[in-house]
Amino acid sequence: MTKSRVETFSDGVFAIAITLLVLTIAQPGDYLHLGNSLARRWPSLAAYLVSFAVIAIMWVNHHTVFGHLDRLDRNFVYLNMVLLATVVFIPYPTGVFGEALRRGLGTREAAVFYSATMTLNAFAWAALWLYAANRRRLLAPAFPEEQRRISTLLFTAGAAVYAATIAIAYASAYACLAFHGALAVYYALDPLSRRATATQMSDAEPTPEQPG
Amino acid sequence: MTKSRVETFSDGVFAIAITLLVLTIAQPGDYLHLGNSLARRWPSLAAYLVSFAVIAIMWVNHHTVFGHLDRLDRNFVYLNMVLLATVVFIPYPTGVFGEALRRGLGTREAAVFYSATMTLNAFAWAALWLYAANRRRLLAPAFPEEQRRISTLLFTAGAAVYAATIAIAYASAYACLAFHGALAVYYALDPLSRRATATQMSDAEPTPEQPG
Amino acid sequence: MTKSRVETFSDGVFAIAITLLVLTIAQPGDYLHLGNSLARRWPSLAAYLVSFAVIAIMWVNHHTVFGHLDRLDRNFVYLNMVLLATVVFIPYPTGVFGEALRRGLGTREAAVFYSATMTLNAFAWAALWLYAANRRRLLAPAFPEEQRRISTLLFTAGAAVYAATIAIAYASAYACLAFHGALAVYYALDPLSRRATATQMSDAEPTPEQPG
Amino acid sequence: MTKSRVETFSDGVFAIAITLLVLTIAQPGDYLHLGNSLARRWPSLAAYLVSFAVIAIMWVNHHTVFGHLDRLDRNFVYLNMVLLATVVFIPYPTGVFGEALRRGLGTREAAVFYSATMTLNAFAWAALWLYAANRRRLLAPAFPEEQRRISTLLFTAGAAVYAATIAIAYASAYACLAFHGALAVYYALDPLSRRATATQMSDAEPTPEQPG
Repeated sequence: MTKSRVETFSDGVFAIAITLLVLTIAQPGDYLHLGNSLARRWPSLAAYLVSFAVIAIMWVNHHTVFGHLDRLDRNFVYLNMVLLATVVFIPYPTGVFGEALRRGLGTREAAVFYSATMTLNAFAWAALWLYAANRRRLLAPAFPEEQRRISTLLFTAGAAVYAATIAIAYASAYACLAFHGALAVYYALDPLSRRATATQMSDAEPTPEQPG
Repeated sequence: MTKSRVETFSDGVFAIAITLLVLTIAQPGDYLHLGNSLARRWPSLAAYLVSFAVIAIMWVNHHTVFGHLDRLDRNFVYLNMVLLATVVFIPYPTGVFGEALRRGLGTREAAVFYSATMTLNAFAWAALWLYAANRRRLLAPAFPEEQRRISTLLFTAGAAVYAATIAIAYASAYACLAFHGALAVYYALDPLSRRATATQMSDAEPTPEQPG
Repeated sequence: MTKSRVETFSDGVFAIAITLLVLTIAQPGDYLHLGNSLARRWPSLAAYLVSFAVIAIMWVNHHTVFGHLDRLDRNFVYLNMVLLATVVFIPYPTGVFGEALRRGLGTREAAVFYSATMTLNAFAWAALWLYAANRRRLLAPAFPEEQRRISTLLFTAGAAVYAATIAIAYASAYACLAFHGALAVYYALDPLSRRATATQMSDAEPTPEQPG
Repeated sequence: MTKSRVETFSDGVFAIAITLLVLTIAQPGDYLHLGNSLARRWPSLAAYLVSFAVIAIMWVNHHTVFGHLDRLDRNFVYLNMVLLATVVFIPYPTGVFGEALRRGLGTREAAVFYSATMTLNAFAWAALWLYAANRRRLLAPAFPEEQRRISTLLFTAGAAVYAATIAIAYASAYACLAFHGALAVYYALDPLSRRATATQMSDAEPTPEQPG
């Protein structure tokens, strides 16, 4: 019961954060040359799409993680809240990133800011997983030990990779945005994480709603 | 389980996107002549109503499609995310369209932008359906083969019709907005799509929540 | 199934619209005299509270109505969408009303605009109910005939009363806002509507989720 | 049924209010010195984090309270709406607080405004609990009498403590914000409230969804 409520609340937060992203695209300033004005907003659109993909993948990931848990405890609920605080924040650096690229001003700072937000988010994911998986604290008995090792590796490596995007941000803001987009695609396609989630997607798992 | 979660998440995104539409109507600039100032915002109101109708119909349609599916796979979940990305974006061109019509500036560009967004959306719908229906990949066994053909025709034709609205946008921005509204009404009334959805509305379909 | 989904979607829209109301309160313009600047925003706060109460009562009402229905049909779903379109719109006239009162400009127009929105909403409610209740089209067999007559009277009278608020708006904007607040309180306390909803609140009604 | 709907609606409102907080952080004004411009927004970020923590704890608390109730009545539903009205309002004083601290103008007024909002919220919580717990009006029979006394003490004391934050606001705006953050952490860690919620988190409670 508590697990399903935390999941539903988290789903709501993911859904709202992903939808608020559209508000980060600045209104066109010049309606006389609207086509130009809109076209010059392509970096905001690109940032919108990258952040949309990032949050969408996270939502899938969130379900995968919750699907492997047997129960929650209060610390986990608060770690989940820390994670959600970083998710809810994403629209802000997304808007700043797109706007900086459009103006051609502060692009490096914006890219660092965006990457730092994503890094914090990746650390929150790692903390959530490590707390749940450490000595199988909250894991379902059926969750294989080998997958636990793979997932721990994936979440830890993810935090390191996102930290590296801060360095890329110093090199090139555009490369940084593209790399974030590529990371999202990688997480969507990656065979390791696919395998880790395969069980959940194809099997009908018994849930509290299913009486059988 | 996964299907119901994807559906709930999508429902949330539809509900939020449809509600954010109201934020696209620009605040009145002149409170001294507020009546005039509000009255001159009728194109924003019209754009709000058309986009509201469009998203509302899509939500009904989304349920119809999901009601015919037996299961989901990961590709389908990501195609659904692509679809949602186009839905979430709708408030932006809606606001631009209404504002351009009010100012009488950039109306053609705004109409093209709006129609291009809707066209992308229609292509995302077609892709979602074709992926699910191709060789009945995800369809429920009970879904009649004849309805599969009708639906495939409807989704493919829909993409073509929405692409045609880009041409109408070049002719007249007002005609374009009216046509989008007419399309929404058509989808709400159309006997072919009604028939395709009739089963779902009148029959009590067994769901995971219903034990009987 | 369809009924519960329409209800969940409507709930989401009510929840989002009620939460977006806070965005209608204009940011303070003068931080040097912030206390004054905030205090002069009391009409926005009053409009926020009235609209919050209105939407909250509507949400309760919506459940009461749905609780008496046996099934939905497609026309009802679309009438419900029309109703939601008027609900989602409420934050806009709410913001305009509060701002006009604060500026002391355009107060009559703002009050008329607000009342006209609420009147449209009341007509949408009446249409929804009349459609469902006419010849008991969608009503549950257990719903008493006498209550049907009371409810029909209440919804029809409600539309007339809200239409009358437009006249009050011409007399005094403040009286109009106060009257809308009083109407919300009346609907919350009214013995007739309480009686009509009493069954639903105290009895455990069998739902699709309850297997027993 | 009614209880679960009120809970779901409340969850939605909590989720939306917590997500709207990000909109309270003012956009950077100077992209030429973006790093500086963002760094000077740290008070808005701090206010965002404090309010996020406050709403997150409240959401956990809300579930705890609802988990102890046997049934709802109409007065309780309206008291819950009053509570939600204070929750939904939180983004507004949060934005004002962060902005006042950034400008170094009106900080005292902003801190008082923020604390007054939280005090109102605490009173709404106390009213909700006292109504439900008074003569065990809505409490589940299994809820121990001793815990009822502890909870009543906690909610009443909470209202007093939040009222005291208004005094702290007069002394120092920064101390006031820090104290609100500390209160949130305290509520998350407090052994008394932990004990009061322990039952709900660790036990599988029978719900309407669980047939067994």
